[in-house]
Amino acid sequence: MSDCIFCRIVNGELPAEKLYEDEHVIAFRDINPVAAFHALVIPRKHIATLNDFTAEENALAGHLLRATANLAREQGLADEGYRVVINCNEYGGQVVYHVHAHVLGGQRLTGAHGLGGGQ
Amino acid sequence: MSDCIFCRIVNGELPAEKLYEDEHVIAFRDINPVAAFHALVIPRKHIATLNDFTAEENALAGHLLRATANLAREQGLADEGYRVVINCNEYGGQVVYHVHAHVLGGQRLTGAHGLGGGQ
Repeated sequence: MSDCIFCRIVNGELPAEKLYEDEHVIAFRDINPVAAFHALVIPRKHIATLNDFTAEENALAGHLLRATANLAREQGLADEGYRVVINCNEYGGQVVYHVHAHVLGGQRLTGAHGLGGGQ
Repeated sequence: MSDCIFCRIVNGELPAEKLYEDEHVIAFRDINPVAAFHALVIPRKHIATLNDFTAEENALAGHLLRATANLAREQGLADEGYRVVINCNEYGGQVVYHVHAHVLGGQRLTGAHGLGGGQ
C-alpha cells in the first residue's frame, strides 16, 4: 500500500469527494477549503512535485493544467473566474508530495488567497 | 500593433527584463513584485485565459507549466520551493488577458501570497 495519501485516493483506498476523473487525472474537493469552491486536480501517476515533470510527461502536464479549466467550466465557475495555485516544496508551502493544482473559485479572490488582485 | 501588452513584450515592442525564452514561451520579471522573486511565464501565442487552451494546444500548456519549474531551477529556487499561480477572469483577479503563470519564490510563501501555507 502506498504511503502517499493522494495515491491512496487514486487507488480508492481513501475516500474523497471526486468531482472529475479521466484516464490521466482526478479532481476532488479539498478537505480544508479556503474559498467558496476549492478542489485539487492531481495526476493519477505519482509525480512528487512540479519540478518532477519530465519532457516525456509534457502531455500529462498539459492535461493537468487544462483539466483545471475544464473542472472550473463544469462547475460553472470558468466565466466569472477562478485561480489555480501549485505549491512546490517548502517555501511554496507544499504539504502533500504528489503534485496537485488547487482550483479556487466561487468568490472574488483577493489578497487573502493569492496575489492581492494584481495581474 | 497589438493591443495586448504581453504580445507587445513578445514582439519586442515593450521592454521587459527577460529571464528565459524559447520557441514557445518567454519569462520576465513582474514589474510589481509581491515576493522576493516574482516572474511571469507566458506563451508567445496570444491565448487570452486559462480557459482558452484547446486540446490542440495541450503540448503548449504542458510546456508553459514545465517552463515555470525550469525557470525556478535556473534561478536556484526549485529545491527550496516556489509557488505558481494562474489567475483566470474577474474573480481570479486576472488583469492582463494573455494567459500568464506567476512564479513566486525566494522566500517562504504564506497567507499573504497564497493559501495560508496549506497543502
